[in-house]
Amino acid sequence: MDDLPLADVYQWLEPGPVVLLTTRHKGRANVMTMSWHMMVEFTPPRVACVVSAGDFSFQALRATRTCVIAIPSLRLAPQVVAIGNCSGRDVDKFATIDVTGVPAQSVAAPLIAECFVNLECKVVDTRLVNRYNLFVLEVVKGWRDPKQKNPKTIHHHGYGTFVVDGKTIHLASKMP
Amino acid sequence: MDDLPLADVYQWLEPGPVVLLTTRHKGRANVMTMSWHMMVEFTPPRVACVVSAGDFSFQALRATRTCVIAIPSLRLAPQVVAIGNCSGRDVDKFATIDVTGVPAQSVAAPLIAECFVNLECKVVDTRLVNRYNLFVLEVVKGWRDPKQKNPKTIHHHGYGTFVVDGKTIHLASKMP
Repeated sequence: MDDLPLADVYQWLEPGPVVLLTTRHKGRANVMTMSWHMMVEFTPPRVACVVSAGDFSFQALRATRTCVIAIPSLRLAPQVVAIGNCSGRDVDKFATIDVTGVPAQSVAAPLIAECFVNLECKVVDTRLVNRYNLFVLEVVKGWRDPKQKNPKTIHHHGYGTFVVDGKTIHLASKMP
Repeated sequence: MDDLPLADVYQWLEPGPVVLLTTRHKGRANVMTMSWHMMVEFTPPRVACVVSAGDFSFQALRATRTCVIAIPSLRLAPQVVAIGNCSGRDVDKFATIDVTGVPAQSVAAPLIAECFVNLECKVVDTRLVNRYNLFVLEVVKGWRDPKQKNPKTIHHHGYGTFVVDGKTIHLASKMP
């Protein structure tokens, strides 16, 4: 995987794709699906996300304060749904679902080899965790798979309905 | 516009569309574009968003603690970009850009008639405003335009590049 400049991270998260979040706690790697995330700062790239207190990943994220956000394209949709339909409490997802965890550089949580972007993250603010399960992360290292050209992401509308990226348009916006 | 049940709000914000945020402060209505938003709770629907301290809307949102989030479809893209390219500090956007503000029910900020969803919001948490410009809102009333069927939203990838909604797929996800 190639380096993804930290200043470009927002361009991949801002459009709202379904992502995967990996953790590793007490030697055990896990992965969950997530759509409740947003950018909060360009550089250093900071990301807010909601990980429910009921999710098995919650304790891992709170205890280790590190994770990886991985962005899957459409071809990974079956695995994305399989990951969302079970809990790491009951099953070792990396052993039973066809995704490949590979070592990250700065965090113990694994990258996902099949994802076209992987972002190594550290938790930098937990003030809204108790009330909203809202973590603020900082992306400390980004990776991009150069072999995946123009990946189409998926966007969740609830209960298994996803909208796939369509055409790209260009307008004369001054906004980054 | 028809009532949009509060429990369905997340299905429209979760997929990450570019939205418009309106405010009214000291008798002056304004509107900005926004892509940094996410759901934080299903019901009551709560939404986190980032409104930069440099935005003219920031003071209005902080002072009035109310706003409207309006979701535009593709056909409104020229207006969306025009709104993002100027500041309410310099121009009256409702007078100069082809969008129509109409009275809301619970807040002073206007709905936008051309948007297929309008959400009246109140600020419920400002603890992360000073550090991240992050507001937590609660949606108190939702509206949906029944005449706009299958609206295609736009998703911002930076500097005027937008991806338009493509095909819809259905997978056997158990997740709401």
